[in-house]
Amino acid sequence: MSSEFGNLLRISLFGESHGRAVGVLIGGLPAGIKVDLEALQQLMDRRRPGKDPLSTARREPDRPRFLSGITGGRTNGSPLCAVIENEDVRSSDYEALQDQPRPAHADYTAHVKWRGWADGRGGGHLSGRLTAPLCLAGGIAGQILARRGIYTGAHLAAVDGICDEPFPLLPTKELFEEIAQKAFPVIDERRGRQMQARITEAAAEADSVGGVIECAATGLPAGLGAPHFGGVENRLAAALFGIPAVKGLEFGAGFKSAAMRGSQNNDPFIVDEEGCIRTESNHSGGILGGITSGMPLLFRVAIKPTPSIGLPQQTVSLSRREPRTLTIAGRHDPCIAHRAVPVVEAVTAAVLLDMIMEGESDEVNGTEK
Amino acid sequence: MSSEFGNLLRISLFGESHGRAVGVLIGGLPAGIKVDLEALQQLMDRRRPGKDPLSTARREPDRPRFLSGITGGRTNGSPLCAVIENEDVRSSDYEALQDQPRPAHADYTAHVKWRGWADGRGGGHLSGRLTAPLCLAGGIAGQILARRGIYTGAHLAAVDGICDEPFPLLPTKELFEEIAQKAFPVIDERRGRQMQARITEAAAEADSVGGVIECAATGLPAGLGAPHFGGVENRLAAALFGIPAVKGLEFGAGFKSAAMRGSQNNDPFIVDEEGCIRTESNHSGGILGGITSGMPLLFRVAIKPTPSIGLPQQTVSLSRREPRTLTIAGRHDPCIAHRAVPVVEAVTAAVLLDMIMEGESDEVNGTEK
Amino acid sequence: MSSEFGNLLRISLFGESHGRAVGVLIGGLPAGIKVDLEALQQLMDRRRPGKDPLSTARREPDRPRFLSGITGGRTNGSPLCAVIENEDVRSSDYEALQDQPRPAHADYTAHVKWRGWADGRGGGHLSGRLTAPLCLAGGIAGQILARRGIYTGAHLAAVDGICDEPFPLLPTKELFEEIAQKAFPVIDERRGRQMQARITEAAAEADSVGGVIECAATGLPAGLGAPHFGGVENRLAAALFGIPAVKGLEFGAGFKSAAMRGSQNNDPFIVDEEGCIRTESNHSGGILGGITSGMPLLFRVAIKPTPSIGLPQQTVSLSRREPRTLTIAGRHDPCIAHRAVPVVEAVTAAVLLDMIMEGESDEVNGTEK
Amino acid sequence: MSSEFGNLLRISLFGESHGRAVGVLIGGLPAGIKVDLEALQQLMDRRRPGKDPLSTARREPDRPRFLSGITGGRTNGSPLCAVIENEDVRSSDYEALQDQPRPAHADYTAHVKWRGWADGRGGGHLSGRLTAPLCLAGGIAGQILARRGIYTGAHLAAVDGICDEPFPLLPTKELFEEIAQKAFPVIDERRGRQMQARITEAAAEADSVGGVIECAATGLPAGLGAPHFGGVENRLAAALFGIPAVKGLEFGAGFKSAAMRGSQNNDPFIVDEEGCIRTESNHSGGILGGITSGMPLLFRVAIKPTPSIGLPQQTVSLSRREPRTLTIAGRHDPCIAHRAVPVVEAVTAAVLLDMIMEGESDEVNGTEK
Repeated sequence: MSSEFGNLLRISLFGESHGRAVGVLIGGLPAGIKVDLEALQQLMDRRRPGKDPLSTARREPDRPRFLSGITGGRTNGSPLCAVIENEDVRSSDYEALQDQPRPAHADYTAHVKWRGWADGRGGGHLSGRLTAPLCLAGGIAGQILARRGIYTGAHLAAVDGICDEPFPLLPTKELFEEIAQKAFPVIDERRGRQMQARITEAAAEADSVGGVIECAATGLPAGLGAPHFGGVENRLAAALFGIPAVKGLEFGAGFKSAAMRGSQNNDPFIVDEEGCIRTESNHSGGILGGITSGMPLLFRVAIKPTPSIGLPQQTVSLSRREPRTLTIAGRHDPCIAHRAVPVVEAVTAAVLLDMIMEGESDEVNGTEK
Repeated sequence: MSSEFGNLLRISLFGESHGRAVGVLIGGLPAGIKVDLEALQQLMDRRRPGKDPLSTARREPDRPRFLSGITGGRTNGSPLCAVIENEDVRSSDYEALQDQPRPAHADYTAHVKWRGWADGRGGGHLSGRLTAPLCLAGGIAGQILARRGIYTGAHLAAVDGICDEPFPLLPTKELFEEIAQKAFPVIDERRGRQMQARITEAAAEADSVGGVIECAATGLPAGLGAPHFGGVENRLAAALFGIPAVKGLEFGAGFKSAAMRGSQNNDPFIVDEEGCIRTESNHSGGILGGITSGMPLLFRVAIKPTPSIGLPQQTVSLSRREPRTLTIAGRHDPCIAHRAVPVVEAVTAAVLLDMIMEGESDEVNGTEK
Repeated sequence: MSSEFGNLLRISLFGESHGRAVGVLIGGLPAGIKVDLEALQQLMDRRRPGKDPLSTARREPDRPRFLSGITGGRTNGSPLCAVIENEDVRSSDYEALQDQPRPAHADYTAHVKWRGWADGRGGGHLSGRLTAPLCLAGGIAGQILARRGIYTGAHLAAVDGICDEPFPLLPTKELFEEIAQKAFPVIDERRGRQMQARITEAAAEADSVGGVIECAATGLPAGLGAPHFGGVENRLAAALFGIPAVKGLEFGAGFKSAAMRGSQNNDPFIVDEEGCIRTESNHSGGILGGITSGMPLLFRVAIKPTPSIGLPQQTVSLSRREPRTLTIAGRHDPCIAHRAVPVVEAVTAAVLLDMIMEGESDEVNGTEK
Repeated sequence: MSSEFGNLLRISLFGESHGRAVGVLIGGLPAGIKVDLEALQQLMDRRRPGKDPLSTARREPDRPRFLSGITGGRTNGSPLCAVIENEDVRSSDYEALQDQPRPAHADYTAHVKWRGWADGRGGGHLSGRLTAPLCLAGGIAGQILARRGIYTGAHLAAVDGICDEPFPLLPTKELFEEIAQKAFPVIDERRGRQMQARITEAAAEADSVGGVIECAATGLPAGLGAPHFGGVENRLAAALFGIPAVKGLEFGAGFKSAAMRGSQNNDPFIVDEEGCIRTESNHSGGILGGITSGMPLLFRVAIKPTPSIGLPQQTVSLSRREPRTLTIAGRHDPCIAHRAVPVVEAVTAAVLLDMIMEGESDEVNGTEK
């Protein structure tokens, strides 16, 4: 119900930012799957902190230890548990904060929900650090999808108002790979440099910026998803809003479609050169009625600016119920949107694999005369 | 998995637009709850078609028949099944469409998913008509919430680019009621008239428009929700994307926050006159880390323009795999965004009640020394 | 959570014994399935009351009305809702009972759970009458299984201590059909007559008797099920204990195995004439580690004697907290075990189909190199 | 779906018998709960192997390491992950077995289900070793229940046909504690010695025996549970059949009730000295209609004889499809029923706590006027 998602493929996060470890338990993985540990590490490295001046100085090697579920490099059918030990923990940075909730963080709400018993250091269980095991889980799902010709890719579509070029109508696997190899995940590198300048600028001012991530998945069969609350949009939304700092999600033309006419927004059906039915445009983001149309899945998520900033902020003392001025020392990212790009890809892969597993049961049953 | 949502309070939709009936099964309602049938009908009437020239001419009285779950006007603890018979069905309008999927409708994706066995008439199970029983279910949830001082309200925030005034920082129950009583659900009636003019204009051109709905909930306790994938945002998102035509969702500042600095977006904590901790602004939409902060819940959904338009559109023949030009006769709404306003309220109420029911188990257990 | 079961195939019961109707909502049925309504009615007729002197005199035609999910005799992929109206309702028989809970019925526990708001007439939602829509749901599942060569059959293994012959090691479809056609569902008719004599005897004494049902399923693939809490035993148990009056369940040798030596109980593996691996005996009931072995699934359920008896019984007045002597008028069955036979078959079919649907997603994913 | 159970309190097992570790992830625990680690270890020690000649010689200290969810000895609201490293692993004992499935073990079914990719050493994920983390999880649940006055206890009711005295009508907490402190968990020690003699005898003959466990829970409120498939029986059954070797389950009079008359089996309601409504006998095992009556919960589970025996057994070569004679070396228990006693208690506590958490949401909502 809380730190888990998925129906047939179940992913559960655990751990606290300044506890012993963070980790993930994955149930329902098919058996006999070769896990490419190197590729997995590469995905996790894209998210890893401490690599460059654009992100937090906390240094974590983020090397998972597999406690179960893998034998000889392949899944063995039993639940996979992977653990990432916390190494560079400086909890003292956070001690003063226990009584003074940081604005836009979950300190206050976690305090209320768990009646003061939460491990609040560094955000505790609600820390962005939990996206490390999340990447790991989604990364394995992505490897399974890729072997079926389904690819997931994302880029930083905007930072602080500077926009990257959007994905083309039919993005390719090669484009996804190209972006994934870049240190800063954009399509147009000139725009990328402008974005980085804005991040550096915000950092210099002890402030932070947000961003927008555009994500696509190609190779999906048409007919995936279920009506109403079991649709692809619903399932993706339920998982994507679990990534810390995500505050908005739109599919295809999304909020723009609200200002369009039906005649503009409706994607005309066509028969393409290979005789396949597809649509001429993709305002629907590849989903109609919650079900995939065979066009690329396309959506955008809004990432709010990193809550941790160096500037003094107004808060309260929880114990005294008095105003306080808070200046956060610690280490923090002036922007987390670029580091969230592989996380969005990973979550998307996990949701899609789960839905494909369900869809297959559908398919096999549906062939009956 | 498909047409249902909720954990302790479970809501399942059934029925097809041109079948015998549409309906809803509600499991987990507390027993002994007085259901105000008149208020319920009023909510459903706000959604009902055929009332005015801005919506479809299909006339359905939408009077539910309760098959179970209610005795003497009160819930009896057993699952509540309510059925709304379809009366004004003109399936002949749709017959020609079976081979020619309507652009931006789910005709094609439903055809693929169910291998040609779907009841495609009028959208079948994927029709907007299913929002009638959905309103009913959410309406009952809303009545239970109201008796606990929790109120849900929504208004049409934009149509075709014309924007209504936004909700104030602390919207009142009275404002919600005032909007609910209007024929056209906006705060600023002048803007509302402009919106209606745009709808009429689009209708005259055999076209359609979309819109944005802003929804708020007040009176929620702080501490509601669960980390990561069990958060209020996740649960609402999973349900709201089940409303046909919803293509985007943002909480608080949402996509705007992506272009803000942390110093602007972070809501400062304050102690208010009553000694309560709250925030000065509400860019977080009342949710931090997936958990309610005690500030009003605030979000916006994007509704795409009605797919059914009178203008000729490009489609294909499914059987012949050839292009076709389609002109949809039938009856359709030039805009559905205003009719979707009570649906968004209802779904929100249903999700919140479900989460409150879970939260309470939390609460009671948490008090232990 | 309550009146529903299943993961991909979801079955939800609703209705009250003396309300307007009882019914079932089935989600997740594959599309395009021909439903043999006549065979379905035959299954339901095996359960139906009022046919003979061995069961209650309440006469209900039990003809379901399908509100959704079927078009032209085939499933259309949308949730199937079927309603059975209550016709022969004599609530007056139950009025006096509202304050005096009937021993061994759920009157008292329902009263406490729903704080006096339950519809207690005739057991309300907890009545055995709910097994009519349950039969219907399981009957459809059984038809789908049969087309895949999977057959489910059951017989009355014991009544009041008189035992029928057990199923042979490898029961056949023909044996299942033969039993299903009998008015009294036993293998050995001589024993069946003895059982009926006991029932008649108990009825004459205004008393009731219980029984044991043995159920088998053949044609199941090996490898179905999941470890620990997702096993076939777990899933069947969770559903079977939902049949009113079931108080025990054992697989294979069950309780007898507790008194056996390992050397006796362990089923030796053999290679049969067709080169298939199977076991020489079936003390495991076709399940090892929660997973099917390919041998017939075999289990037994204990049905307690019908709680409603004509003899005076000791109870209390809920309002006065005083002892009362209760004599139940009304109409009741001296035995329900024989009427429960098709219900056990139906529930088994529903659980197995659900697990097969899950297993298939497994299968398709597992084939990867 | 597979190695997990629970709705609000979720328990997921992971690990393999001869892998790095076994463990458990517990989601939904209330925050601020003091975990008595010493008492927890005592419970786990009751299950631990290698203590005496009646169980396997494998020596495992079974000391859990908590990776998350606990801060300063109290739950912190985040998922609790506990890991038990495997220390005394001798996989060589099992190597020869990979091609020759052990009768009555899950070797063959796991092989089929996971297409040869399962980690079969020592039963892999399906090993009884997974009951160590299961005990841990249930033990924490039991501590929470005990602080609310709800106690769970069990004893070995029968071994190889020798029966212990049954629980009295109203078992006490003191009786539960007394049994828990015994090396061999019976009420009547004379009978216990006879049972142990039988186990020793079977061991001497390189054979094994099974047993029956009787379990009770006291202090449960009336009104807990949900109709049909959400009942206490259903929820307990779904979890209890997840304990390896459990092949039967009966509540109250169970299978015996099938041979009783209604007039004997029906528990008469009475008003006791304290003015509480209870029943004079407890043939229902404390449950009517799936809902607790306030009487002690009472059930029995059948444990089959340990499949691993030293005697030669008939099996097959999976690769050659030929008969083989198998003699299992390795270390094994001549009886596991006595070691399963704390496991049954633990699982029962976990299920009851989960249901109480749900029931509370019920309660709070139900008080409305």
